[in-house]
Amino acid sequence: MKSTTRIAKIQALLRRKKLDAFLISQPHNRRYLSGYSAADHDIEESSGVLLIPARSKAMLLTDFRFQIQAQQEVGKMDVLLYPKGLLSLLGTLLPDLGVRRLAFESHYTLHSVAQKMEETLKKQKISLHPLTDIVEEMRLLKDEEEIDKLRKSVQLNEAVFEEVYTNISPGQTEIEIALAIESTMRRKGAESPSFETIVATGKRSALPHAVPGNIAIKKNKALMIDMGLILDGYCSDMTRTFVPKKATKKYLKIHRLVRKAQLAATEAIRAGVSAASIDKIARTVISDAGYGKQFGHALGHGVGLAVHENPRLSSKNRKHLRAGMIVTVEPGIYLPGWGGVRLENMVVVREDGCEVLNTNTTWLDI
Amino acid sequence: MKSTTRIAKIQALLRRKKLDAFLISQPHNRRYLSGYSAADHDIEESSGVLLIPARSKAMLLTDFRFQIQAQQEVGKMDVLLYPKGLLSLLGTLLPDLGVRRLAFESHYTLHSVAQKMEETLKKQKISLHPLTDIVEEMRLLKDEEEIDKLRKSVQLNEAVFEEVYTNISPGQTEIEIALAIESTMRRKGAESPSFETIVATGKRSALPHAVPGNIAIKKNKALMIDMGLILDGYCSDMTRTFVPKKATKKYLKIHRLVRKAQLAATEAIRAGVSAASIDKIARTVISDAGYGKQFGHALGHGVGLAVHENPRLSSKNRKHLRAGMIVTVEPGIYLPGWGGVRLENMVVVREDGCEVLNTNTTWLDI
Repeated sequence: MKSTTRIAKIQALLRRKKLDAFLISQPHNRRYLSGYSAADHDIEESSGVLLIPARSKAMLLTDFRFQIQAQQEVGKMDVLLYPKGLLSLLGTLLPDLGVRRLAFESHYTLHSVAQKMEETLKKQKISLHPLTDIVEEMRLLKDEEEIDKLRKSVQLNEAVFEEVYTNISPGQTEIEIALAIESTMRRKGAESPSFETIVATGKRSALPHAVPGNIAIKKNKALMIDMGLILDGYCSDMTRTFVPKKATKKYLKIHRLVRKAQLAATEAIRAGVSAASIDKIARTVISDAGYGKQFGHALGHGVGLAVHENPRLSSKNRKHLRAGMIVTVEPGIYLPGWGGVRLENMVVVREDGCEVLNTNTTWLDI
Repeated sequence: MKSTTRIAKIQALLRRKKLDAFLISQPHNRRYLSGYSAADHDIEESSGVLLIPARSKAMLLTDFRFQIQAQQEVGKMDVLLYPKGLLSLLGTLLPDLGVRRLAFESHYTLHSVAQKMEETLKKQKISLHPLTDIVEEMRLLKDEEEIDKLRKSVQLNEAVFEEVYTNISPGQTEIEIALAIESTMRRKGAESPSFETIVATGKRSALPHAVPGNIAIKKNKALMIDMGLILDGYCSDMTRTFVPKKATKKYLKIHRLVRKAQLAATEAIRAGVSAASIDKIARTVISDAGYGKQFGHALGHGVGLAVHENPRLSSKNRKHLRAGMIVTVEPGIYLPGWGGVRLENMVVVREDGCEVLNTNTTWLDI
């Protein structure tokens, strides 16, 4: 879908809500609607906002550091600079555009910034209206162009994993493997990792979010690698758990159980079923084997421009899955003092089932 | 200074302002006051908040993922978990503590979160009061223990630079050098880089914030490296610009001019002088040589738990420097189509001058 079509949808919504314009500050939303790919250093250091008037052309507002990049990326959209800051520009621009009711993304605007904006715009008789999750709702359903980008992101992530996996040898540390993964990502053309790579060996794999340490891996101990990258804006996210040499019977039992849960959930995913019901299918497989309490997180999450987005495959999410959603399926069992196994793929929800984007089968069916 | 002393200062301020408690959400402020070192994945994914009642002991509120880390780090402070979310815990905890007027960090709270908090707490007759930059103001002045941590951070950063510098050879790409820097940082014990390493060669060094690319460096072209790391929570930030083999006359002229500006500013730094006057000293050296417009950024910024913090050494900052502040001194000249030179050290403001934390002299005095 072209960004102009996406913006037209937002404009129709603004007119229905009798709002005159919408200020988009959330970086993924900004990129989704304009193509402008700059990230924010953090929320206090914005690299720009997208202003969408209800009845005229959208424009990107930024500062001189990002001018060239913005102009290259936003196509025919105007790029306006704010040498004296965003508020100062809005103070003159909004009255010129006839804006009286301005919407903003209250879930990506600091309270102190909203306060200042309110004070400044009150003088111009412009009122502020918080909106949340409008663009996020649009981003839930991926079109085929986006699905293709996500597929390529998954493929590149798997290529990186396979290269690093081939070279893993006992004695290497978790940090060394994590660095090998992240440098291979960049060398193969990824924008960056989509999150901090997790490499956890032995007992440490019982921590779902272990930070890699200066700890050497051992040939008969489990190794959990959770990794993802960003390619052309779109994220991948994959986990593999394996034993470099010979696995124990207990390891194989836990591993096969996690895989069984993953397969059962994957088979059940299709448009129209609730997210909670899919989580339950995986959870039941694991609970029936006596490990229910050791599966302490939700089954999966959406992936797109953000590596964690909606929908959540969790017991709390009663909403139905829809065709075009992309989710991870990542059951896990974590036994403190022993270790953990998590297996994670990404799938596209289709009308009649789901399409698994992963093709890497390392240690899946053992 | 002990965190209990710091918290006592906050409590005195709360009592003066007739506030009953203060919710600290900004991660560096949280660490400064409690020792709890977890970062936030992003502002929407907090790893906890510090609650400081005006008249009783501070406590750390977090979720089960961070329980062990928090308990290890906060000493005698209580750690409370919020299995049903922060708002739910506050709804029962605050009335128990007799809190009627709750302050929060409005510069690190999302507008949508503040709205929900206000709605929830209104039912308990608790009012919300935005505060900004209270802890940041305390963090401006570093005590000797902090200065020592910053010195060690600078020293480690220089050791990393020196190791990588020795191995630089034409043909390597910007990305390869950046990765070598970041992996050497981690191998030598840094928590992480303090910002994304800048490696820019030739003409690209004219971009003050160049992102490393797949571009080979050349022996007679300038190379700009801007790098920093985090050690024990404290950041370093250093820039060196050099030519791997032989520099042109023009390069040497620009380089010497930048160094002259840096030395002039460094000599003038002491408690009691205005930040703007220091910026002006460096700027005048560069302007007098005809390159004023090519020095497009401020002279420096504070460094501490955050890599960019106050005070800014900029023409807009009329405030006086005070003993214990730590700032970068980083003049630069950027010539589009040719390249740029920036040289950056960190210094401690003292009563009678300043102490340069850097000892590395690579290509400084040439």
